[in-house]
Amino acid sequence: MAEIRELGSSEKAFLEAFLPQEVNSDLPFVTLTYAQSLDSKISLGPGLRTTLSGPETKAMTHFLRLKHDAILVGVATAMADNPGLNCRYPGATAESQPRPVVVDSEPKWQYNSSKVLELTKEGKGKGPWIITMRQGKDQSTPEDLKKHGGEIIPLEPTTGIPTAPTSGHIPWDTILKSLKKRGINSVMIEGGANVITNILGMPELVDSVIITIAPTWLGTGGVTVSPASKTEDGKPTSAANLTDTKYHQFGADVVLCGRLETVQMQARS
Amino acid sequence: MAEIRELGSSEKAFLEAFLPQEVNSDLPFVTLTYAQSLDSKISLGPGLRTTLSGPETKAMTHFLRLKHDAILVGVATAMADNPGLNCRYPGATAESQPRPVVVDSEPKWQYNSSKVLELTKEGKGKGPWIITMRQGKDQSTPEDLKKHGGEIIPLEPTTGIPTAPTSGHIPWDTILKSLKKRGINSVMIEGGANVITNILGMPELVDSVIITIAPTWLGTGGVTVSPASKTEDGKPTSAANLTDTKYHQFGADVVLCGRLETVQMQARS
Repeated sequence: MAEIRELGSSEKAFLEAFLPQEVNSDLPFVTLTYAQSLDSKISLGPGLRTTLSGPETKAMTHFLRLKHDAILVGVATAMADNPGLNCRYPGATAESQPRPVVVDSEPKWQYNSSKVLELTKEGKGKGPWIITMRQGKDQSTPEDLKKHGGEIIPLEPTTGIPTAPTSGHIPWDTILKSLKKRGINSVMIEGGANVITNILGMPELVDSVIITIAPTWLGTGGVTVSPASKTEDGKPTSAANLTDTKYHQFGADVVLCGRLETVQMQARS
Repeated sequence: MAEIRELGSSEKAFLEAFLPQEVNSDLPFVTLTYAQSLDSKISLGPGLRTTLSGPETKAMTHFLRLKHDAILVGVATAMADNPGLNCRYPGATAESQPRPVVVDSEPKWQYNSSKVLELTKEGKGKGPWIITMRQGKDQSTPEDLKKHGGEIIPLEPTTGIPTAPTSGHIPWDTILKSLKKRGINSVMIEGGANVITNILGMPELVDSVIITIAPTWLGTGGVTVSPASKTEDGKPTSAANLTDTKYHQFGADVVLCGRLETVQMQARS
């Protein structure tokens, strides 16, 4: 594993306003962060782990992980990428590690053979929490997971037609509130495409957005982030917008910080 | 029409290395420039003119137009957007206007009712050149176009299966060489999606790439720029890459300058 460098003071100053803050709410502070190509792809294809960002932005990712209580990904990403979801920023201790959270309705993630649990056993990360859909059967945490600090968290699914965006079948605010109740004050949502697309539709739940853009086009076969189109008064409008935007070049990439807003842009009439 | 402001010195310095230079070649200096959303859309839908970039980057577009001998767009853009394709940068004279070039194989563009010809008649732009496919019939320039400095330019189509990317049926190097022969030393290619996607596949023909990224997601119904996927040695690779990248914030947007490179990135093995 390559060593992670410390961020410089101008890089830290750039990120400062978008880092987690104390929020007096039943929801945690939520940061959405991911890397994409110019053509809005996060990987070359389904299940293909793709290194998009350079070493400069990798350092940023680990700095951000240090600043959050939890890192959340969808099960598809956990299975395709087998990510470590820990923090390797200089000075990170076992205690300061973020909690890995995998949203896995069924569940189907094989945590036993995962990098996450491997790192937990080595003392380099916390045991994973698995958010799953409450069912009529026993959903207690197995001993092999419990002894490493992991937990199965069954949550109530949406009944009927969901009125809000969901992950699998669990409403996002249910997921986030359950994390806050467990002491998680800040969550960094890292992917994958379905999770990101979902979250972009919920400006009320997201506090910061931090996107790395790599100067490459992965091509039409890649996995795309693009929310469903919207219309307002019968006119097409943008699906999501950022406000308070700030950009900083990290190596060959650029990092964009902003906040989701609800006002949409329209086609010219 | 809103007035266009002058660029500041830091903005000019940022663009400097990517502006047209004298090239001793039978090809003009080619700049590819366009504005896109974070999800790589250039408009909300086919035929929907969409204002993506703010006033700051609009000033940049007109500064760039001042620096080029010609502006080239595909016929779909000419018809959908009815763009002026002239330069409104402070101090631009009738003489310093770029030549509007529309690539229109059939041809089907109704130049008579176009904004381009309207501006020409008002002395605010040059008469358009229409690049079309050579056919067995009369393709001389009609009087109403000729008297405004416009011209129909019929070029030889590719015969058989094209070995290089083409616009409609005319190879791009044929188009660019014909412009150079007519005294055009620099061309700014502005769109639309088909033209851009084509050009991204030809690093040997493109000297500079200048992309404005607006902090919005237009959504799945938008018109996308994403080149066809590539594979190398059976592995998926990126379709195109930029090198020498530089970024500068213009208002809420970021502008990316770079040069197309031929080395591709691969999925992790």
